[in-house]
Amino acid sequence: MNNPRSASSSVSPATPDLLDNHRQSSSGEFSRLEKRTGPRKMTFHSKSMPRGSMFLDHEAFRNCHDKSSLQEEDKEITEPLTADRFFDALQGPELETLKEKEKIVLPEDKTWPFLLRFPITSYGMCLGVSSQAIMWKTLATTKAEKFLHLTQVVNHMLWWISLLLLLAVSITYLFKTIFFFQAVRREFKHPIRVNFFFAPLISVLFMALGIPHSITSNLPSILWYFLMAPLLFLEMKIYGQWMSGGQRRLSKVANPTNHLAIVGNFAGALLGASMGLEEGPMFFFAVGLAYYLVLFVTLYQRLPTNETLPKELHPVFFLFVAAPAIASMAWTQLYGSFDIGSRLYFFISLFLYFSLVVRINFFRGFKFSLAWWAYTFPMSAVATASIKYSGEVTGVATQVLSVVMSGAATLMVIGVLVLTVVHAFVKRDLFPNDVAIAISAEPPKQKKWFKQIKNGSFGNSMRCLKVSDQDDNQIDVEAPPLLNARTV
Amino acid sequence: MNNPRSASSSVSPATPDLLDNHRQSSSGEFSRLEKRTGPRKMTFHSKSMPRGSMFLDHEAFRNCHDKSSLQEEDKEITEPLTADRFFDALQGPELETLKEKEKIVLPEDKTWPFLLRFPITSYGMCLGVSSQAIMWKTLATTKAEKFLHLTQVVNHMLWWISLLLLLAVSITYLFKTIFFFQAVRREFKHPIRVNFFFAPLISVLFMALGIPHSITSNLPSILWYFLMAPLLFLEMKIYGQWMSGGQRRLSKVANPTNHLAIVGNFAGALLGASMGLEEGPMFFFAVGLAYYLVLFVTLYQRLPTNETLPKELHPVFFLFVAAPAIASMAWTQLYGSFDIGSRLYFFISLFLYFSLVVRINFFRGFKFSLAWWAYTFPMSAVATASIKYSGEVTGVATQVLSVVMSGAATLMVIGVLVLTVVHAFVKRDLFPNDVAIAISAEPPKQKKWFKQIKNGSFGNSMRCLKVSDQDDNQIDVEAPPLLNARTV
Amino acid sequence: MNNPRSASSSVSPATPDLLDNHRQSSSGEFSRLEKRTGPRKMTFHSKSMPRGSMFLDHEAFRNCHDKSSLQEEDKEITEPLTADRFFDALQGPELETLKEKEKIVLPEDKTWPFLLRFPITSYGMCLGVSSQAIMWKTLATTKAEKFLHLTQVVNHMLWWISLLLLLAVSITYLFKTIFFFQAVRREFKHPIRVNFFFAPLISVLFMALGIPHSITSNLPSILWYFLMAPLLFLEMKIYGQWMSGGQRRLSKVANPTNHLAIVGNFAGALLGASMGLEEGPMFFFAVGLAYYLVLFVTLYQRLPTNETLPKELHPVFFLFVAAPAIASMAWTQLYGSFDIGSRLYFFISLFLYFSLVVRINFFRGFKFSLAWWAYTFPMSAVATASIKYSGEVTGVATQVLSVVMSGAATLMVIGVLVLTVVHAFVKRDLFPNDVAIAISAEPPKQKKWFKQIKNGSFGNSMRCLKVSDQDDNQIDVEAPPLLNARTV
Repeated sequence: MNNPRSASSSVSPATPDLLDNHRQSSSGEFSRLEKRTGPRKMTFHSKSMPRGSMFLDHEAFRNCHDKSSLQEEDKEITEPLTADRFFDALQGPELETLKEKEKIVLPEDKTWPFLLRFPITSYGMCLGVSSQAIMWKTLATTKAEKFLHLTQVVNHMLWWISLLLLLAVSITYLFKTIFFFQAVRREFKHPIRVNFFFAPLISVLFMALGIPHSITSNLPSILWYFLMAPLLFLEMKIYGQWMSGGQRRLSKVANPTNHLAIVGNFAGALLGASMGLEEGPMFFFAVGLAYYLVLFVTLYQRLPTNETLPKELHPVFFLFVAAPAIASMAWTQLYGSFDIGSRLYFFISLFLYFSLVVRINFFRGFKFSLAWWAYTFPMSAVATASIKYSGEVTGVATQVLSVVMSGAATLMVIGVLVLTVVHAFVKRDLFPNDVAIAISAEPPKQKKWFKQIKNGSFGNSMRCLKVSDQDDNQIDVEAPPLLNARTV
Repeated sequence: MNNPRSASSSVSPATPDLLDNHRQSSSGEFSRLEKRTGPRKMTFHSKSMPRGSMFLDHEAFRNCHDKSSLQEEDKEITEPLTADRFFDALQGPELETLKEKEKIVLPEDKTWPFLLRFPITSYGMCLGVSSQAIMWKTLATTKAEKFLHLTQVVNHMLWWISLLLLLAVSITYLFKTIFFFQAVRREFKHPIRVNFFFAPLISVLFMALGIPHSITSNLPSILWYFLMAPLLFLEMKIYGQWMSGGQRRLSKVANPTNHLAIVGNFAGALLGASMGLEEGPMFFFAVGLAYYLVLFVTLYQRLPTNETLPKELHPVFFLFVAAPAIASMAWTQLYGSFDIGSRLYFFISLFLYFSLVVRINFFRGFKFSLAWWAYTFPMSAVATASIKYSGEVTGVATQVLSVVMSGAATLMVIGVLVLTVVHAFVKRDLFPNDVAIAISAEPPKQKKWFKQIKNGSFGNSMRCLKVSDQDDNQIDVEAPPLLNARTV
Repeated sequence: MNNPRSASSSVSPATPDLLDNHRQSSSGEFSRLEKRTGPRKMTFHSKSMPRGSMFLDHEAFRNCHDKSSLQEEDKEITEPLTADRFFDALQGPELETLKEKEKIVLPEDKTWPFLLRFPITSYGMCLGVSSQAIMWKTLATTKAEKFLHLTQVVNHMLWWISLLLLLAVSITYLFKTIFFFQAVRREFKHPIRVNFFFAPLISVLFMALGIPHSITSNLPSILWYFLMAPLLFLEMKIYGQWMSGGQRRLSKVANPTNHLAIVGNFAGALLGASMGLEEGPMFFFAVGLAYYLVLFVTLYQRLPTNETLPKELHPVFFLFVAAPAIASMAWTQLYGSFDIGSRLYFFISLFLYFSLVVRINFFRGFKFSLAWWAYTFPMSAVATASIKYSGEVTGVATQVLSVVMSGAATLMVIGVLVLTVVHAFVKRDLFPNDVAIAISAEPPKQKKWFKQIKNGSFGNSMRCLKVSDQDDNQIDVEAPPLLNARTV
């Protein structure tokens, strides 16, 4: 294994393809993400092949590594990516930025079709606005807040806005699903993005919760079953992945966005209980509680294997606050009063909220994205819970608390709205090229690793070692390529 | 350390023993697992020594590694194995299969005495049948299931069958303890098997719970104390090991079979509460809850250090369902009604159940073993809980649910029964040689590692590295022998 | 380490400083830990520099490793230490012992000023005595214990003793803060010690809880807010660190002493509820519960990344018992009766207590330290809880339990008191030099690593590898320097 065959001039058989590929039109490249690429097999290895790399090393690599990846070059973009591939190629708190040296399979230098740039995270906007609708509805209908003399007009307005927004986003995303099905599929495979697929379902739940009294006060309970069924199926899939030990197991994908997969349970329980149902909402509450527990502990532990957990605090951490805040309201509805259980959840969310707020500097230095909208709805949720709390424990302190919280939530939403408008119309970069869906299926080859290492037995075996580290997706999380990182 | 002393002719002092050992009769080999081997010191290193291995390497190894294991060759089979040794030598979801290159200390090619092949997992049958007895008792006595017109005959029959089964298994295992004490001891040291030592205790609890009304409806409460005392002691030992940081710490041994160590608490609490006791059952409930929490989170996280956790889903995962199902019933008894707490546990077990059922393909491709019986009792438990639930929330839906669940549980037990009969009488392999108790105390030596590596400073140091990796039990979990795996 | 290359004459450029430093008076060295060292920049690298070290290796290291630490030599002792530095330089269950080869920046061979040797762990004494005051108060005032005919004199005496103790310790530590601010700062940075900064706050809470009825039965509730405010701030800081992903994240610093950061919540909730407050105590109870859960699971898992968790059982583990015992009493006060919730917490603490007691041998072979006082208060806490329990569930069994528990707690406190007196006045080593605050900011250089390795490509690259392993604080927990440990 160690003796390098004296690798000579051999030109890689992939080279002709490489050139050919360059001549392809970019529209052809987009087409690969479309619904059906049919039997046409488009290669894209040219992007991931190092041009002018040292052949010698490639030969050595081929010798060292029997299941060489060279023969896998002819894969299509439609090939499903492994979760590990996402971890390898992307970085950032939302795994949204391409790592250095990685290439994408779509042209980097031009703007892609709008639908391709329209991510599932856009549903964050619906979450943000519809949660505000709920908050203003609660503000207007809670006795303890009567002194504010609010009418339900704000709720009404926000609800209609969020309805329009939800329709607009849904129709656009529907078109994306139709025309670029593979792109949607890749978003669903993306370890972080997949959590945002709960966002449309939660948005609809929020719409139902925030519906103005003037429209209806009694939604039919059949609606609840219709809304919860897809949620249940999606949960079974996602929670099953957490347990089943593959690349998407919890110790690997744990990230605050997982809360989106939990929040739906509590929001559904709240909606169901407010409709007068009992068993169903209790079911979702129980499931939510069990998995929230697992998630809370896991996220707090910051296991070294949690690859997607941002190293630094980040707006995404506000999602911590959402689940207990909504759980508090759900428990109140289920139990009929804001009892000791409701307080438990509410106080936990309050403490988490404050401990995040005092570390406020994490709003600086981060690139704005549509996902931020999702990170603002927890503030509306905890504000709504504190309004409910002020309805139970009357007094100036609780009134001040709920007004301050509501104000902060509204200001935050306005702030994010302004950022969105600026990015949409001034900077015109609200929908940048979505590199997360365009990563290549295979990692880039390494070049020029061994410049200083002389020929010899050690050099050769080390070379094998390194190359195999680089190319082996199976390398274990808990054993970072120590040698690799240090010797080179 | 690196310069190999020029290893010369020296014949290993172990060689005469090696030859001598080969002449031993196999009955002598079995005798090592008997109750008392007395002062006779039987060596078994011959099995684990590579025959005709390169002496040079041995010499090198001895030079590299001061605390060489060569001097430890004269150990008896009665020597207690470390937990790490089990991890090293065995594999499979129940750590029941020998890894390649490992040798066992009993003859592989002949069938061992029956008692040696009779594992503690046989108690799984008792769990399976007695839990069915409870389920049919509950079916016959719950008002909501009156429409089925069931009598208590099935309960009666199943109870007597499980009594006979329990006696048969217990007597057999008692004989094993008497005649092959060391084999029992090794089962107790086995990281997975040890959990099955809870099975006899839980079986008795199940017998007490499922006792037909025609025999007695009022068990004396003194019985409860007698049953729970050994459970408490065993728990203190096992939970203590989880915490105390040795090789059996939780982050290493976590496996769904650990649920067996928890279920006893809830079963005991249920029995005690149904006898009218209060404080004792509450004690066990509280302890069970605390440790279930720890276990649930740990198993869901799938820490990379959980060496015994099956990589793939496997019937063992059904044990997840048992604890909350029984906790639900215990809480109902303790609190006096199927209240919100009972629902919490019941719904959690229901969700876990369904999320396992939809991933049904894991019943294919696995080797049947007696342990499967233990994996079926959770289905009976959740069916019983759903019958209790249907007694609280009356309606067609809950009736259908409980009938379906009960049917599924009964079918599963029948299925496993058929498999057992087939393996017992047709294939005649129900009790295969139990390699898990016969692993050698020391790992196999590696041969021919270095064929291609030339002499030189690198070769020498690498040799040390590899050999010490291979022989060092202390090697840390989180640092798999990276170098080793790649360079060779 | 292997065959020392004859390291030659070369004088390190640091030598002049080194000599100069030797001439410094030791009072000058202590002054570095004083409040303000002003602009004077005292170097202390002489301690950590290998004298007469090989230039060649340093050169090699400098070549391998661009951000060489050589230029960082001129740092002051006032420089804040990273958490990693503490992990690297110290060992032992309380990270209180210097690792081999590490140097400290204060003279090892003479006794330091008393204030420098007075650690924050001294507050353990206040915890131990004041918790006894509470226990004796509860014993004297619980009806079920009337048969003991105890008066409140013991409570009275103990309370005054603990008041004096608290004042003495606080004044001494105040002086330390004034005169050796940097030493206090280093204690606060110490991953274990920082938890003891909760001890003064908890001590005051215990004083308020144990106040004799003859002094007052009604403390003003404003006092509660004054006591809890600093606790809240400290918690936000510490819990925030657990989550925020730096070197002090929970998966790294988890240690039973973290319980001190939780206990305050329950003690505060208990005090507040006994004052008649409701919402505030509930808030702290909720927060305590959430974080206790995280801590309990994390500690039980014994993650390999928990660097500060003692490998063996140790008195520190008794802290496990404190939180649920106090939570039980707090819940009783909040809910108005010793209900099922109180029992849950009480039984959990009881089980933990017993499972620690049966593993009693861990009191042997450990060096006594003042921290042990902190490890005794949980026994008083669980004894107090069992007295309360005996007040709810009357009977001989509970009376025996509470008397036994109280006796054990008192005996333990007496035992630790005797040890303290012996160490203070007989052995005169109660306050040894506190090396934990005097570790050098940079790790010791390694010398003579490569003696046997010949020049050549392998030797050079390995050299880089090793040196960088040694010097890189960023090295990941889960990848112990495998190669390093084995090849040398």
